[in-house]
Amino acid sequence: MDNKMDTGHDRAAGYEKLSARFGSRLQTSDAVRLHHAHSTTWHKAEPPDAVVFPNNTGEVAEIARICSAYSIPIVAFGAGSSLEGHINAPLGGVSIDFSNMAQVIEVVPEDLLAVVQPGVTRERLNEELRATGLSFPIDPGANASLGGMVATRASGTNAVRYGTMAENVLALECVTASGEIIRTGTRARKSAAGFDLTRLIVGSEGTLALITEITLKLRGVPDYTLAGVATFESVAAACDCVISAIQLGLGIGRLELLDAAQIKACNSYSKLDLQEAPTLFFEFAGIEAAALAEFALFQSLLEDCGATSVDWATDADHRSRLWRARHQAYWAVTAAYPGRTSVVTDACVPISRLAEAIEETRADMTQMQLDGTVLGHVGDGNFHVILMVRPEQHDEMARAHHFIDRISERAIRMNGTCTGEHGIGQGKRAMLAREAGASLDLMRGLKLALDPTNILNPGKLFL
Amino acid sequence: MDNKMDTGHDRAAGYEKLSARFGSRLQTSDAVRLHHAHSTTWHKAEPPDAVVFPNNTGEVAEIARICSAYSIPIVAFGAGSSLEGHINAPLGGVSIDFSNMAQVIEVVPEDLLAVVQPGVTRERLNEELRATGLSFPIDPGANASLGGMVATRASGTNAVRYGTMAENVLALECVTASGEIIRTGTRARKSAAGFDLTRLIVGSEGTLALITEITLKLRGVPDYTLAGVATFESVAAACDCVISAIQLGLGIGRLELLDAAQIKACNSYSKLDLQEAPTLFFEFAGIEAAALAEFALFQSLLEDCGATSVDWATDADHRSRLWRARHQAYWAVTAAYPGRTSVVTDACVPISRLAEAIEETRADMTQMQLDGTVLGHVGDGNFHVILMVRPEQHDEMARAHHFIDRISERAIRMNGTCTGEHGIGQGKRAMLAREAGASLDLMRGLKLALDPTNILNPGKLFL
Repeated sequence: MDNKMDTGHDRAAGYEKLSARFGSRLQTSDAVRLHHAHSTTWHKAEPPDAVVFPNNTGEVAEIARICSAYSIPIVAFGAGSSLEGHINAPLGGVSIDFSNMAQVIEVVPEDLLAVVQPGVTRERLNEELRATGLSFPIDPGANASLGGMVATRASGTNAVRYGTMAENVLALECVTASGEIIRTGTRARKSAAGFDLTRLIVGSEGTLALITEITLKLRGVPDYTLAGVATFESVAAACDCVISAIQLGLGIGRLELLDAAQIKACNSYSKLDLQEAPTLFFEFAGIEAAALAEFALFQSLLEDCGATSVDWATDADHRSRLWRARHQAYWAVTAAYPGRTSVVTDACVPISRLAEAIEETRADMTQMQLDGTVLGHVGDGNFHVILMVRPEQHDEMARAHHFIDRISERAIRMNGTCTGEHGIGQGKRAMLAREAGASLDLMRGLKLALDPTNILNPGKLFL
Repeated sequence: MDNKMDTGHDRAAGYEKLSARFGSRLQTSDAVRLHHAHSTTWHKAEPPDAVVFPNNTGEVAEIARICSAYSIPIVAFGAGSSLEGHINAPLGGVSIDFSNMAQVIEVVPEDLLAVVQPGVTRERLNEELRATGLSFPIDPGANASLGGMVATRASGTNAVRYGTMAENVLALECVTASGEIIRTGTRARKSAAGFDLTRLIVGSEGTLALITEITLKLRGVPDYTLAGVATFESVAAACDCVISAIQLGLGIGRLELLDAAQIKACNSYSKLDLQEAPTLFFEFAGIEAAALAEFALFQSLLEDCGATSVDWATDADHRSRLWRARHQAYWAVTAAYPGRTSVVTDACVPISRLAEAIEETRADMTQMQLDGTVLGHVGDGNFHVILMVRPEQHDEMARAHHFIDRISERAIRMNGTCTGEHGIGQGKRAMLAREAGASLDLMRGLKLALDPTNILNPGKLFL
């Protein structure tokens, strides 16, 4: 994919058209442009030339038609919580801010689905669902927009039970690069009718189409929840317990690992006195008797794997106290290194390689003199590293880059993936090429078919 | 997509090349050609010009390169159990029979996965897994090849619990139209790395790539299984029970509906004395205490929905007796109409519309003077109709066609899909166009990108 494109006088005419059409809803101030390049990322901010705020799908299609005619790049913007530079505009162009398209259009409790606009955040959706007894369980941590979650194939702590966005989007309305409005999928829970366009667009990071409406699967809020923590002497022992639980097919709600360094940071930040050792945070939820039966089996696994302490609770206050360390993990580690910047990365490996992957990562971190913690959604084999770096120390930054590349390479070598949930964006393009091998050409072919002039989020996914 | 292609002398030269390369593994006898166009379908058999039996992926790539050079259509053949004419060769060409590529390459119990060649059938895989305590649960009924199940996005009775092939294929090796070997996906349980090529190829019916190796998710065989049947006064009452169970999020293993006509056929065929009324077949499986807790809730739903009788069992013999009617449903209905031919179709609707969809379908059947039964995987909103027709009665066949179109149209109108699991093939191309609307152009664009000369299973999916 050639990331260079026509610039100059063509674009200027296009911006004039956009300005004439959208008036004050096309903004070009430095502050607004910079805001739309500022995300939770360590990539240098590359602001768009302008930001436009459409009110509906028809307007998104108009924007696409104008941008297509004048070769103006389009970057979709939701909540700015992506991690790999997805919302940067390295080739300039227009950022489409979906904050005016943030309606929950329909909730259909009897079909366990909701139809939303892309600017709705997951927390807003769940607030609106509160009275129905249903929820949308996918939770990447940040209060991301649902459009962004579709675009990045987000997952998070609940994925071990409910899957990722790939399993929880039933249908989409999208605008294509040429400004056509299309619909993919239906409200049926499965289909064998033609290519699975929905799942092609989920995770395509704004490079294939602009998402303008999403039909999501909902789930009943469980009647009963049991949550707890268990401490282990080693990451390997904790991972063995995870592996056994997954292999037994236990109906685990959530299963998270924090390493000793992370627990130490949490103790300090959240005023806790957890043992500073690798710790599993677990949750079982559903019908009380069923959850208790699953938990009883899990308890015997904890014992077999040598858990040195186990604490659990069922009332909401106690549960939330037990999980506080997990919930505040990110803030705890950033507070532990004042003045530094966080760099977050992730990888996902086959479950049997998890302990090895994490231990080699920790050894690398020590050997490369980097500070940080390891935590993750270990039930999926997905783990994260939060590095705390000093951007002004070029040598440290170079080591951090190298360290992250090695995590990706290790995961790929273990038959895993360079990213379980953060995506490729700008940061992992070289790793995608390595992971995909010959299939990268197929991806390029699809991109060319759907966006022949490369206006949709250029400079992402492909080097 | 233009289904016409160059024929004539080009092809003849290509067949000579194939013959020189594959010798007796290229067969052109009428018997072999006809066998490869004979599937469980009501579509007229359209045999290929030749059948080739590759031994490995490299040979599949060679075949693709020759066929690409000489514009010879390629039709992949697994077990011939597809239902919509998928394996027909309307434009001639070569059928690739994968029966020599039927090895279980690797079973990795610790990662709950197996790697298989496309010719392995699901029953063979499960036999090989017996000693591991694991199984591959997707069960479309027929002993299909796993390559075929990938190609058609198969599902079946277990999909309500385990999902369809879309959720159970981790990775693929494929050969492209130009003869390149590519790999998609990894052994990690999730990934956010680039376009989801695996899920694009799952369900693409041999039109985008040839599947040469499949990495499948496995599950633990449940320790405990409880199975039963419940009778209702109406399809609506049975469906209400299904809807409530799905909405409560009960961990149902299987949930099947047979209508009164189907039960009548089963009583006669399987020597049973079931009440001739709409009947739900259900299964709960897992840890004993958990399954019993879920079943207790289900029992209260059965009562609320006015089940007139409920019978259940946990020992294997009794369970299999209770489910015999379901297992023998297809044979029962064909036996009930000796001398006739079965025509099987399916559709899938949002769960809330299921009763309405089935009742309107039954009313149509009566009004259009057609004989048949309705059954289905109702937990997914997916139902099947088995019509028993006399192909020589042209008027009856015309009514059958019209009846099936109306089922598809009704499902689409209800925000569902014209096929939940049988696929499009030749039979539902017009319905795919109707269902997909403007997104059909996207599908055509993808097809053109991956198979520019339209040699992969031409005449399928697109009119």
